[in-house]
Amino acid sequence: MFAQATLARGCALRLPVQSDTDSVHLLRAADIAEMSMGLTAPHANSGCVIVRGPHIVGEGFLYGQGSKSAELQAVERAGEHARGGTAYLNLEPGDWLGDNSAVASLIQAGVSRVVVGIRNPFEHLQGRGITALRHAGLNVDVAGEDLIDSKGSIAVALKSCRVVNAPLLYKAAYKIPFSVLKYAMTLDGKIAASSGHAAWVSGELSRARVFRVRAQSDAVIVGGNTVRRDNPSLTTRKEEGHQPVRIVMSRGLDLPEKANLWDISKSPTIVMTQKGSKKEFQKMLTDHGVEVVEFELLTPRRVMEYCYTRGFLQIMWECGGLLSAPAISSSVIHKVLAFIAPKIVGGVLAPTPVGELGMLQMTQALNLSEVEFEKVGPDMLVSGYLQPLPDLPFGNSYGGQSKGQLTFA
Amino acid sequence: MFAQATLARGCALRLPVQSDTDSVHLLRAADIAEMSMGLTAPHANSGCVIVRGPHIVGEGFLYGQGSKSAELQAVERAGEHARGGTAYLNLEPGDWLGDNSAVASLIQAGVSRVVVGIRNPFEHLQGRGITALRHAGLNVDVAGEDLIDSKGSIAVALKSCRVVNAPLLYKAAYKIPFSVLKYAMTLDGKIAASSGHAAWVSGELSRARVFRVRAQSDAVIVGGNTVRRDNPSLTTRKEEGHQPVRIVMSRGLDLPEKANLWDISKSPTIVMTQKGSKKEFQKMLTDHGVEVVEFELLTPRRVMEYCYTRGFLQIMWECGGLLSAPAISSSVIHKVLAFIAPKIVGGVLAPTPVGELGMLQMTQALNLSEVEFEKVGPDMLVSGYLQPLPDLPFGNSYGGQSKGQLTFA
Repeated sequence: MFAQATLARGCALRLPVQSDTDSVHLLRAADIAEMSMGLTAPHANSGCVIVRGPHIVGEGFLYGQGSKSAELQAVERAGEHARGGTAYLNLEPGDWLGDNSAVASLIQAGVSRVVVGIRNPFEHLQGRGITALRHAGLNVDVAGEDLIDSKGSIAVALKSCRVVNAPLLYKAAYKIPFSVLKYAMTLDGKIAASSGHAAWVSGELSRARVFRVRAQSDAVIVGGNTVRRDNPSLTTRKEEGHQPVRIVMSRGLDLPEKANLWDISKSPTIVMTQKGSKKEFQKMLTDHGVEVVEFELLTPRRVMEYCYTRGFLQIMWECGGLLSAPAISSSVIHKVLAFIAPKIVGGVLAPTPVGELGMLQMTQALNLSEVEFEKVGPDMLVSGYLQPLPDLPFGNSYGGQSKGQLTFA
Repeated sequence: MFAQATLARGCALRLPVQSDTDSVHLLRAADIAEMSMGLTAPHANSGCVIVRGPHIVGEGFLYGQGSKSAELQAVERAGEHARGGTAYLNLEPGDWLGDNSAVASLIQAGVSRVVVGIRNPFEHLQGRGITALRHAGLNVDVAGEDLIDSKGSIAVALKSCRVVNAPLLYKAAYKIPFSVLKYAMTLDGKIAASSGHAAWVSGELSRARVFRVRAQSDAVIVGGNTVRRDNPSLTTRKEEGHQPVRIVMSRGLDLPEKANLWDISKSPTIVMTQKGSKKEFQKMLTDHGVEVVEFELLTPRRVMEYCYTRGFLQIMWECGGLLSAPAISSSVIHKVLAFIAPKIVGGVLAPTPVGELGMLQMTQALNLSEVEFEKVGPDMLVSGYLQPLPDLPFGNSYGGQSKGQLTFA
């Protein structure tokens, strides 16, 4: 399923000659952690690479909830070769569900050094894994704190460690799931023609990309408008593998009796609505197996707080401008993925991706940070953050505080 | 002014070793022709590179109306070194104003071979220069007709020859000036905030780019809305050098009494309006030195036909959605330059770049061709053609007709 065959077992892979060994292996740990992105909630994405001498002797990453920890897998693969080796972890080991196999396996295997990308961003876990390893006599280096980065390659690896667990960092910093707003628009800024017809704004490759991001998300959110207009399925178009929960936000439940989202054979649907709204329609939904959640006041922030409690790590907003606007206004959108198709459709009434934000001056506009441009087939994907990728407290980024603040002896 | 010092005089420049000499020199001819882009109307952009053996012995390009032809300049610079050499021209020589110095100078200088990028696109000139040279005994190769392009490098040079004279090709094919629609919008498709405030959507580098394209244009067109809302100057922000004519299209002349465009000290302004509209306002304008042109029916197409007759080669449309829509609908827009700034401003009433085109389905959208993406500072510039770059009749593109069709002996 995850191309496990490509992961190293025993003394196998030869490495390219690299001057900065630590950053190469740390990057590899982040890369393999990314393979299960979206599948591990509520856990983080963890990867472990064990190296002895010039060889990678074992690797592992967390497949999903309930699977063996990355460290245990890597140790098992390395066998005796782990002894005296160095383990590279994109994230500090340790788990809030009480599984201490990650730390224990590294100690038992006789690993002598551990290089950690970032500390666990959650307060109650941060530093615990590192301290436990150090107490057991292992030499632990945290990338942003203990490693000298003469060539900037550690910073590159560290960035990957942060990005692969961006959902975790956002969740820890903002107490809501990492939220990504995705839309596709024409070069003249329309997400549909004036009739509301939107199939298709972007090309096939862009749509395939959307399926991939969906597969990395725990839930996809749309508003009532999108259900009425597009009747979407919001699946990943794959028969197997992870499907996100579909969430519909609708105060008035003015929704069609028949809709693809009421078919929960592929993936669950949750309709979130205002308390007491259209009880009969609610019953119809629950009869179909659709879950209905009532809110005192249905707002993007309340919904995100609810999703946080429920353990969702990453949410993808695929709504129109009517819902994206209050979501942006209430600061629950962290990242934007905008697919721009090189076509012109016009239309005075054609919808645009973001509705009313109450900004009268262009100078009030929200600037995206860490903007990236990527050509996807004929389209351009512009992505960036509306809320900055959180830095961890206690170092973990260059220019932050220095070594050892949490390593109470 | 044009960095003439960098142009080769006499036996001077050493060339890099190149297997495909013809395409290198032809590309150079197109490149130097581009230096005066926008300054030569109604003439084409011509560049001439004379080569003997491994050396460029003379170069020249047309500076502007009334200046010496590119060929004459190159021949003068080459002096005796031109004899027996090869002259590379991005465009067939010859001029409709009766200046035959281009052809004559090559013959008199004793050039033995001439390589021509594209034929002159105008019917009454096409083939005349080539025929004259061949009659005089020179060996003439036309890039798309006579040269073998084993590596595709000739096609690259030919594309540059076509692009540098795109205005000429469009003008010849469509009988209107080459028209470029330029706009800057936010990542959510707005060209201004909901109050109409638009300063500034795009960054400094994008605005500098706009000034450059303005300097290459013979005229810039806006509608009444833009004058009322933005009070633009539409200059190139340079004290010296070419300034485009500013054109305001306004049927009702519901325009402010005071506006930057009524100050013609830097560049002329033409107000185009409906016959008989607000005679007193017209008088106020003409008193300021603003030219007023009345149309029976003021439409983008009529205006473009008028501009064609007046000799304009390239027009830049810097209007809002109200005017860009009918301009696109009536097929007078050939190219689109869209600057996209990575910011979100929202606004249900915030204007978008293209108004009503009457398209109800997304499948009706107009696709741009030859789309290019370019990062300009923090912004993304997306450019492409709404009307394809015209191919010439009688060959001049690979896959077209073959050699000699116009070389009646």
